[in-house]
Amino acid sequence: MPATLKEFEAVFPTLVADLKAHCQKYKLPEQALQWFEQSVNHNTLGGKCNRGLSVIDTTQLLLNKDLSQDEFFRAATLGWLIELLQAFFLVSDDIMDASKTRRGQPCWYLMPNVGMVAINDAFMLESSIYLLLKKYFRQEKYYLDLIELFHEVSFQTELGQECDLLTAPEDHVDLDNFSMDKYTFIVIYKTAYYSFYLPVALALHFAGFATAKNLKQAEDILIPMGEYFQVQDDYLDNFADPSVLGKIGTDIQDNKCSWLVNQALKKCTREQRAVLEENYGRKDAACEAKVKKLFDELKLEQDYKDYEDRRVTEIREKIAALDESEGLKKGVFEEFLRKIYKRTK
Amino acid sequence: MPATLKEFEAVFPTLVADLKAHCQKYKLPEQALQWFEQSVNHNTLGGKCNRGLSVIDTTQLLLNKDLSQDEFFRAATLGWLIELLQAFFLVSDDIMDASKTRRGQPCWYLMPNVGMVAINDAFMLESSIYLLLKKYFRQEKYYLDLIELFHEVSFQTELGQECDLLTAPEDHVDLDNFSMDKYTFIVIYKTAYYSFYLPVALALHFAGFATAKNLKQAEDILIPMGEYFQVQDDYLDNFADPSVLGKIGTDIQDNKCSWLVNQALKKCTREQRAVLEENYGRKDAACEAKVKKLFDELKLEQDYKDYEDRRVTEIREKIAALDESEGLKKGVFEEFLRKIYKRTK
Repeated sequence: MPATLKEFEAVFPTLVADLKAHCQKYKLPEQALQWFEQSVNHNTLGGKCNRGLSVIDTTQLLLNKDLSQDEFFRAATLGWLIELLQAFFLVSDDIMDASKTRRGQPCWYLMPNVGMVAINDAFMLESSIYLLLKKYFRQEKYYLDLIELFHEVSFQTELGQECDLLTAPEDHVDLDNFSMDKYTFIVIYKTAYYSFYLPVALALHFAGFATAKNLKQAEDILIPMGEYFQVQDDYLDNFADPSVLGKIGTDIQDNKCSWLVNQALKKCTREQRAVLEENYGRKDAACEAKVKKLFDELKLEQDYKDYEDRRVTEIREKIAALDESEGLKKGVFEEFLRKIYKRTK
Repeated sequence: MPATLKEFEAVFPTLVADLKAHCQKYKLPEQALQWFEQSVNHNTLGGKCNRGLSVIDTTQLLLNKDLSQDEFFRAATLGWLIELLQAFFLVSDDIMDASKTRRGQPCWYLMPNVGMVAINDAFMLESSIYLLLKKYFRQEKYYLDLIELFHEVSFQTELGQECDLLTAPEDHVDLDNFSMDKYTFIVIYKTAYYSFYLPVALALHFAGFATAKNLKQAEDILIPMGEYFQVQDDYLDNFADPSVLGKIGTDIQDNKCSWLVNQALKKCTREQRAVLEENYGRKDAACEAKVKKLFDELKLEQDYKDYEDRRVTEIREKIAALDESEGLKKGVFEEFLRKIYKRTK
């Protein structure tokens, strides 16, 4: 049985108590201790926790059994470390992107009295990962592998974010700066490594199957899957029904280097390119409507569907060819794919 | 012979090349690669590098010999990791404090086209530490100790910064919020651990003398020394000759929770407290002058000199009582103290 969000969330208060106990060892003044606790709760809770939950689900599939209470707690802890990593990135991304809301609340830096203190709060979320790793995994032979994995995935995500910020600054539209190569780099590094590869790599270590071969097989399937997931995200931003999606897409107005605009740039005529130049990335509903109309004329919805068919076929072929001899299981990837294939939100 | 800044700086280009090579392995687009290189150089170079140099000098004292070329390179690399850690903190502190200049140049976030991208650049400076540690120290038995040391000192520095930001927000003066306890916490955690303890702890690991006893002895001397250094900094901010200090102190106008204001709060009359309440932390030269006059009336300069005498005597006694049987040397601490005792800038 897959873990429920509720079961997963039930683990978190113990981890928060661990973090507080560590601060108290240093005699952190009370005011600062309370602030830290608020930041951890505000920024880590309230999401769907797909990444964290998938560590537990993958571990169950790999071990082919229900987890003991202790195993559940430890797999969930690894899951929460991904959620803390994501919190670290989201708190800071929201400042860099000047975002307003996150998970239905004001972004942390916009909460009363927070402001730029949020930058240091983000650092403390990151530090919390290594503090909890040390507390719960120091005795494991794969402890150093876990640390290096978090370091590497963090750096990869930062490279993706850097490339994204330089390619599509919100205040300066330059379509010459976009390219499918940059797009691919951004989605793989900014999203795919930490959202798709990291949960499975963590579960492989925890389950005792983190051989070089298994990690490589997982990466070879999960990175294309993460890329597909992000292309889907860009497609839904423009083509999904907002009432189903749960939000109104803003990629066009926000000058995002999205899959759609890159496809449009590849196939547009000189006249259509002029329409894009004039209207993409403007904070103006009329401009946005012209871009949307162009995306329809260029039949990008069909292009997306062709891409999805091709990409999913490839992924399924890779899963079918997977070598299970070192303990990795096809079911892990089938489960990831099942959750995202033809999603509408 | 102590290492010169020039010899130390000569090592840095190799480390930058290593970082670039790592990014190229990931096929980071050229524009982003150049940006990263600029950020690393702008933010890490140009300081006095006291922390980095002291890793080399301490290593020489511990090994009691001149270092081979390879030993010098590796000790210098550890020194540069502290400078990278400091760069990570300074880039972000400057945003949080809304500072304007750093090392005679505009702060990184104020450079053309940088802005809030600087937050992600700070993350990449931090990630660079672990990347270089892995490249040059992975084979050492103390590799994991080095990683954990950087994690712990980073978190300690973040706790100090958090407490500082909450105790003395620049836009909200509340002297009730100040206390010597908070002051001590801030200076020890925000500065002493990474500036005084970290260089010696790194040198101890590198020299092969990082026993629990030696690390503890080093901490017991270097943390009070770092505290003394910061009290001195606060004293100089107000009492030093600006032409010697090389800058004009701004702690009073900036509402800093400094040693001087905490001493003033301890000994002032009700009337003098009212003067502080009315004038401390205002961006106004006349208010600042009234606070300076009060600091003179309260004879804080003499209090500082008494404090310095007491504290330096204590530190000298601890150094004299040091147990050198596990390879630690009194000379290490005498050298640190010599560099800061009665400094005027």
